[in-house]
Amino acid sequence: MKGKVYLVGAGPGDPELLTIKAYRLLRIADVVLYDDLVSPEILKLVSPGAQLRNVGKRCGKKKITQQEINFLMITLAESAHRVVRLKSGDPLIFGRLGEEVEALRRGGIDFEIVPGVTAGFGAAASLEIPLTHRHASPALVLITGHRASHNPDNDWSNYVASGATLVIYMPGHEYSQIASRLMKAGLSGETPCAIVSRASTAQQQSLVTTVTQLSVSQTLPAPTILIVGEVVRSAYKATDGAWEPARSLRHNLDLSGLLASAEVFAENEEPRP
Amino acid sequence: MKGKVYLVGAGPGDPELLTIKAYRLLRIADVVLYDDLVSPEILKLVSPGAQLRNVGKRCGKKKITQQEINFLMITLAESAHRVVRLKSGDPLIFGRLGEEVEALRRGGIDFEIVPGVTAGFGAAASLEIPLTHRHASPALVLITGHRASHNPDNDWSNYVASGATLVIYMPGHEYSQIASRLMKAGLSGETPCAIVSRASTAQQQSLVTTVTQLSVSQTLPAPTILIVGEVVRSAYKATDGAWEPARSLRHNLDLSGLLASAEVFAENEEPRP
Repeated sequence: MKGKVYLVGAGPGDPELLTIKAYRLLRIADVVLYDDLVSPEILKLVSPGAQLRNVGKRCGKKKITQQEINFLMITLAESAHRVVRLKSGDPLIFGRLGEEVEALRRGGIDFEIVPGVTAGFGAAASLEIPLTHRHASPALVLITGHRASHNPDNDWSNYVASGATLVIYMPGHEYSQIASRLMKAGLSGETPCAIVSRASTAQQQSLVTTVTQLSVSQTLPAPTILIVGEVVRSAYKATDGAWEPARSLRHNLDLSGLLASAEVFAENEEPRP
Repeated sequence: MKGKVYLVGAGPGDPELLTIKAYRLLRIADVVLYDDLVSPEILKLVSPGAQLRNVGKRCGKKKITQQEINFLMITLAESAHRVVRLKSGDPLIFGRLGEEVEALRRGGIDFEIVPGVTAGFGAAASLEIPLTHRHASPALVLITGHRASHNPDNDWSNYVASGATLVIYMPGHEYSQIASRLMKAGLSGETPCAIVSRASTAQQQSLVTTVTQLSVSQTLPAPTILIVGEVVRSAYKATDGAWEPARSLRHNLDLSGLLASAEVFAENEEPRP
């Protein structure tokens, strides 16, 4: 009997933002193939008997090719393994899910997609910024600033013209480039924006500013998410150019609840056959 | 000491797609204020001692106003209750989160936002449709077809022109209206689309067709999600006008895993003080 591949979203970083299903699959997996951006706290939850393998391709420096990942998934599943392909955030966007699923179909391998909390939603929740608002934004656009998808025919003017909130994945280290791309697409430099680093983790940092000022802002550690739009004003107010939260935010998460949950899980783990 | 309000995403419907954090909060809540669309299977997980209250406003028939919900949250939190405000999917989009959060800030009530798996992602995962694809769609747009947000100044032509995948929440019962709105915005009638009813639940139903044919399609039970774009072709092929999945899908979910998890949870519940 062949095994099965589970393409699973790991959520934005906080282990408590895993779904119950993702957690269960990490406990029964024989092999977990994970991307660079999956947080170490989440990898600690994987069953100790499972093989853990980093198949990340950070910053275009290819340690492993997409074809090699596909081959690995198929080979492992053919050897009757339960394979978890763990992707940070949600697997359905910006993660080459399409290519991996096509390879599994061609290989005749059973698979299942388990959605997760996407990083943009994790970032917005931490900063208390609603992503749509009856009076400020009718829609939400998720785009990536990554070079690989920087097709010159695909500028952002349509998104800007729509008035929707923009959530930009992988905005890059050069904030001046992303700010200039947004303004070339017609966005007012006065539009507020928030950049969030390592959203939902204990290392989370964030910066609220305008698109013009973003160009000269300090660079936060990757991975980051950039939220752009009037909705930012519902959580932050500008006073003399400095943006203050409408109320004080806790950037250090309280992990006591998580530990309690993890203990409950750990104590009741079924012994592996 | 005052209580606290947790604005929590319940995910698309499958209880296993709750986050660990959402599950934990449902177990410790004193009061749960939930929307109509939250599935009964999820409500069953709420701690038996908690007060459960439906504050839904289905189909514009207002059983309770937004102001009443805000008042209820503040009053309960002032009486030192742990209040969970449970919203289907993710609370950050199309759910009046902004208004509820503003009311809590004004009331001086501590709150926290817990993101969830949004219904659109749950629907796409079940149908095995990637929402972006390097070769088919560079971006994802989340919009609502609901009348309340049908501002005539805000047509969808910008989204259509961008070539992004569209995920439409609350597309309504009259599919001919939504199809006509998409085509007026410039979308080709030949564009494939998928309508998914009660995504990720045991009652899930779906229909894959083109935008032109959607007008004459049977109506599926609400709530539904409409996915529109070339990405649909990566999971479905048209043969003589009939759309078949690239592989057979299981529409009845295997709940055995869930039950096992739920038992683990239930056995280890701390006794309430």
